[in-house]
Amino acid sequence: MSSAWGDTLKLSIFGESHGPAVGVVIDGLPSGEELDMERILRFMDRRRPGKDPYSTPRKETDLPRVLSGVYNGKTTGTPLAVMIQNSDTHSADYSELASVARPSHGDFTGYVRYHGFNDPRGGGHFSGRLTAPLCFAGAAAIQMLERRGVSVGAHLASVADIPDLRYSTAELTVQELLAPGQKSFPVLDDGAGEKMRRRIEEARLAQDSVGGTVECGILGLPAGVGSPMFGGVENVLSSLLFGIPAVKGVEFGLGFEGSRLTGSQYNDSFCVRDGEIRTGTNRHGGILGGISSGMPILFCAAFKPTPSISRPQQTVDFIRKEPRELVIKGRHDPCVVPRAVPCVEAAAAFGILSLWLSCGGK
Amino acid sequence: MSSAWGDTLKLSIFGESHGPAVGVVIDGLPSGEELDMERILRFMDRRRPGKDPYSTPRKETDLPRVLSGVYNGKTTGTPLAVMIQNSDTHSADYSELASVARPSHGDFTGYVRYHGFNDPRGGGHFSGRLTAPLCFAGAAAIQMLERRGVSVGAHLASVADIPDLRYSTAELTVQELLAPGQKSFPVLDDGAGEKMRRRIEEARLAQDSVGGTVECGILGLPAGVGSPMFGGVENVLSSLLFGIPAVKGVEFGLGFEGSRLTGSQYNDSFCVRDGEIRTGTNRHGGILGGISSGMPILFCAAFKPTPSISRPQQTVDFIRKEPRELVIKGRHDPCVVPRAVPCVEAAAAFGILSLWLSCGGK
Amino acid sequence: MSSAWGDTLKLSIFGESHGPAVGVVIDGLPSGEELDMERILRFMDRRRPGKDPYSTPRKETDLPRVLSGVYNGKTTGTPLAVMIQNSDTHSADYSELASVARPSHGDFTGYVRYHGFNDPRGGGHFSGRLTAPLCFAGAAAIQMLERRGVSVGAHLASVADIPDLRYSTAELTVQELLAPGQKSFPVLDDGAGEKMRRRIEEARLAQDSVGGTVECGILGLPAGVGSPMFGGVENVLSSLLFGIPAVKGVEFGLGFEGSRLTGSQYNDSFCVRDGEIRTGTNRHGGILGGISSGMPILFCAAFKPTPSISRPQQTVDFIRKEPRELVIKGRHDPCVVPRAVPCVEAAAAFGILSLWLSCGGK
Amino acid sequence: MSSAWGDTLKLSIFGESHGPAVGVVIDGLPSGEELDMERILRFMDRRRPGKDPYSTPRKETDLPRVLSGVYNGKTTGTPLAVMIQNSDTHSADYSELASVARPSHGDFTGYVRYHGFNDPRGGGHFSGRLTAPLCFAGAAAIQMLERRGVSVGAHLASVADIPDLRYSTAELTVQELLAPGQKSFPVLDDGAGEKMRRRIEEARLAQDSVGGTVECGILGLPAGVGSPMFGGVENVLSSLLFGIPAVKGVEFGLGFEGSRLTGSQYNDSFCVRDGEIRTGTNRHGGILGGISSGMPILFCAAFKPTPSISRPQQTVDFIRKEPRELVIKGRHDPCVVPRAVPCVEAAAAFGILSLWLSCGGK
Repeated sequence: MSSAWGDTLKLSIFGESHGPAVGVVIDGLPSGEELDMERILRFMDRRRPGKDPYSTPRKETDLPRVLSGVYNGKTTGTPLAVMIQNSDTHSADYSELASVARPSHGDFTGYVRYHGFNDPRGGGHFSGRLTAPLCFAGAAAIQMLERRGVSVGAHLASVADIPDLRYSTAELTVQELLAPGQKSFPVLDDGAGEKMRRRIEEARLAQDSVGGTVECGILGLPAGVGSPMFGGVENVLSSLLFGIPAVKGVEFGLGFEGSRLTGSQYNDSFCVRDGEIRTGTNRHGGILGGISSGMPILFCAAFKPTPSISRPQQTVDFIRKEPRELVIKGRHDPCVVPRAVPCVEAAAAFGILSLWLSCGGK
Repeated sequence: MSSAWGDTLKLSIFGESHGPAVGVVIDGLPSGEELDMERILRFMDRRRPGKDPYSTPRKETDLPRVLSGVYNGKTTGTPLAVMIQNSDTHSADYSELASVARPSHGDFTGYVRYHGFNDPRGGGHFSGRLTAPLCFAGAAAIQMLERRGVSVGAHLASVADIPDLRYSTAELTVQELLAPGQKSFPVLDDGAGEKMRRRIEEARLAQDSVGGTVECGILGLPAGVGSPMFGGVENVLSSLLFGIPAVKGVEFGLGFEGSRLTGSQYNDSFCVRDGEIRTGTNRHGGILGGISSGMPILFCAAFKPTPSISRPQQTVDFIRKEPRELVIKGRHDPCVVPRAVPCVEAAAAFGILSLWLSCGGK
Repeated sequence: MSSAWGDTLKLSIFGESHGPAVGVVIDGLPSGEELDMERILRFMDRRRPGKDPYSTPRKETDLPRVLSGVYNGKTTGTPLAVMIQNSDTHSADYSELASVARPSHGDFTGYVRYHGFNDPRGGGHFSGRLTAPLCFAGAAAIQMLERRGVSVGAHLASVADIPDLRYSTAELTVQELLAPGQKSFPVLDDGAGEKMRRRIEEARLAQDSVGGTVECGILGLPAGVGSPMFGGVENVLSSLLFGIPAVKGVEFGLGFEGSRLTGSQYNDSFCVRDGEIRTGTNRHGGILGGISSGMPILFCAAFKPTPSISRPQQTVDFIRKEPRELVIKGRHDPCVVPRAVPCVEAAAAFGILSLWLSCGGK
Repeated sequence: MSSAWGDTLKLSIFGESHGPAVGVVIDGLPSGEELDMERILRFMDRRRPGKDPYSTPRKETDLPRVLSGVYNGKTTGTPLAVMIQNSDTHSADYSELASVARPSHGDFTGYVRYHGFNDPRGGGHFSGRLTAPLCFAGAAAIQMLERRGVSVGAHLASVADIPDLRYSTAELTVQELLAPGQKSFPVLDDGAGEKMRRRIEEARLAQDSVGGTVECGILGLPAGVGSPMFGGVENVLSSLLFGIPAVKGVEFGLGFEGSRLTGSQYNDSFCVRDGEIRTGTNRHGGILGGISSGMPILFCAAFKPTPSISRPQQTVDFIRKEPRELVIKGRHDPCVVPRAVPCVEAAAAFGILSLWLSCGGK
């Protein structure tokens, strides 16, 4: 694993923040799948910085350009490649800045990993911009899953200490699942959303930032997808989710909270409903033994606060090995988590499609 | 991914709980690595059921048998294969039980996934017994990492709602890291351990079970190991950790708690200490941009309560699609988390060794 | 790649010639596949040294022992592991011999690759004995392919300069395909076989050895299996075939001979036969663009002469870097190619099953 | 495997002949490697159609555009992506032609494999144009190998039945190895080259085509690179080489000819030369037990004749299942093998670099 992922369905993401383009090659997609590009663009708009998704005119440079793998609007089955041109980036003099480690960023670790040859401009390959091609891949996967009766949705489960409602686990409807994604601020409870926005604005004014969590749900996945041990739904999804910058935790079903319960409190009873095997509650998050149970897949991802804050920070010049005070300039998103919601959906959808195909689904 | 894992260093685990044997093939190990079998056995003893690791005579059938890959006490570099014979298991009549889904177990999902052909006896390939070969692989990896200056340790961070102390993140010593693993009950604070034991006993008496969490630390890993996106330390470790039955959450550094902080609270300042780049605090858990920072790697895994409880539970016969009341017989561990501590160490060590080798380390 | 192979269907082979056992783990098999063990044993007997497959009593130690993945005689879908115990091998003093490179063997290269830690006894992991677990895997794959209407057969196409007949490419029947495998000497033309046997005996008497070729055919594979570029039938089969010791060349259809023809001589015309698209001739060996065409898959593998000959040979002690004269003792097979015929079938069957499953077949 | 290849060093090739672009993502390259783009372009020119490599002005559209992975002229260590725009292709009406199978092409098999959704224009993803990105990857690998003392060269070993000289196996110099690649017609013996050209011209005039073979040599590779079984040099190279359209056979060292010899004729004696272990002859082609021996790696690839010939051919409309006479229009290369020489070098270089890195080389 690296920036390439997968066995059956392969993802190879490339690009640097200030290079010519970012993009992705997807190898192993089923053929004949219609791609609604307009919907893909709307999906990608949800992660765009500085967006107001329904009014702002789209900048040409943000448009993904399909280079291969689509013919007459449908997937060919051979590799699907997409590039997204980077806009003209004023490559200021990075020579100095390149050796001053921004706290919580990958500047220093990337420097060591690549022996000083990594592209440091705007974070290079470590930039959040690399989630744009991931969102393309996920948006395509979402359409393919829908055709198979599977829906993927997510919402901001919290910003700082302000919680949203949670997907009601056992009786989640597709409408409820997808509602947050259709709002400009992706929450279930708009009242909570209002508080979150204020909290983010407060952070901005304080030259600070905040973190948060995203809850994701997958509906309609039949029982029997996934594998025991390392091919489990949890393994596969987490191996993608931690590829989204700033994700520091992933939990399925009750997750950490479940570790505080007793077996009699936690175990979900099985029952028969409409001739199908179901569980009455869904503390297990739709996964048992690594395999989908037919109940909604539910998981939560934790995002650390945006690393870039404009307050002065203590750090070092890691080449000269000297202390430095750093003031990060430019506009920075005081909370990336709202924009990360589609990224989580994308990673989840791509992972689920991959599992579907590798378990013999077509 | 499935029960096989990895690109550079490959792990292929096999076996069923009541079959002839469980085992593992490890492909891609460096050659010439001495294996201290006595230490491997002591490590594996830590996960054994019904153990008292320093007095109980080891049962012959628990002994791992090296089938290949070791010559004159050292790794050959070609595949290392190990089998662990299963003891005589009274294969009672499973024909009926096989279709009654034990809540929180993989009985039903495994049945659907494998179209009814999975081995249902004792959970088959879904059994916790499959962590025995994982522990062998991890114990071998631990020795190889030690030779490279890297130490791996873990402890019970909580049982139900009773917390242990936490590894003091910035100045953790090897001694402190490894201390819990040398105790019969792997905690930092023996007082907390005493409370945990009582809580477990309480659960046992109530025919119930409890969950918990395990904190793991990795010391001595130099900066620069791991990769951005899907090859990050978080991705690689979580893809292994969720292979341990009952793990439902993984977080690195402050994890979920960190999502509630502001950037100014969360960001770790860099500094120069003894000529090395360090951070003053370690909220990031030793990983930035997917790559080790040179600080201790710290993460936590959440375990759901033991699924098997002896109280009557509501469930279904999933073949006949009829409700059933289930009473699980036999002795069951009311808390598997103490025995899971070495499993977490093993997964972590194997993942870190794999990353080390794939980043050009020898 | 190493001794582990595959993405969808994974093979992990382990063992050394004089270690405790050789074996294999197969991950990703479909569940519910009946394994006729008696037939597997008969298949494996065809590669046994010193065999007379229909009379010699089987030595207990040659018996493969299934460790997991089979329940009630059918595959469970979870990893199938098999070990084959090595018989008591008189581990003479190898300390000296270990540094004298047997010409055409991997003694020297293995020593360098593994820094002197490889098991040198009897060739260690480089031994032809490692094809025994490959044959198990292939024998299982053959049964699964048969159930899907696909047959795999092979024969000795030549020994030294003595040719057998060739599978008549366009109208090959299953009976003709499988006939050589049912003979004690696997040829199409028994007259040619007689000459080959004499040639082998001649080599034996001259303390020499001979090479040969194996032609393999696959019947009943529908059009559409395989992928362009690196996932082609040729790529996948050759990546397995070169894993059989002594294979030094692989060609599909007319292969090297075809490179001497013109397009008008080589191209196979398409036609419609019984409502199916076919070609009149089959110079393409059933593969176009990496994908099966529905015509028989035909390929040929070249084996170098057995490296071990009892004549004195000039070589070196590669530790002392001194010249040495080497006389290899013991009985050695003057021609391994007859025994390699089932190995080629096994590699082909495993590769085709893997392609079948990864192209969406069940 | 598919159009993505590799574990340690990954290659993901995309594009269709008449789509917007072809290209490649390479993941896992070492960082800090200088890329001489001028040399890469010269290398790629060698495979260009209708070329006269030293005079024709390069068409803009043939220029590879680096999208990521290079900064300040050196590799960053993160994915290197390249796209090569396709020139304006007059997409005539393909609707009819799309269902008429050109003999020896992948039209029919691609149609079946992808259920009719493959891009049929100009062969789509099956086109020889896909070797352009492979050549970019190989040209970059060649530079990295040179820096490590390894040289890769190839020449036309035959066209139809006209042979070139062969690399003299045991004492091949770098100069001799690379000489053919510097000629406009890549042969060792220009007299043979002249005959080959005439043979090709003859085929052109006869509205026919010819095949041929390419011999490739790798010098300077130290002993110890590669692995036994499926990770051998033969396995890895052949898994790439069969990705070049029209390759139908691969042999290492004496290959098929070696199968006709006796052991005493074939075995290469080891000797000590300049303090190094060498063999006196090199019938083994530099590979023993899958691992490099320190002698030159030598192999040969067989190419079938160009499938497209302008003579009328019998074929079928595979949708209507009706016979058709086909006359292929347009200019077609009566022999692609001269242009395939750099493709073979590219595949070899990429495979060897991958093996080098995965065996612990830096």
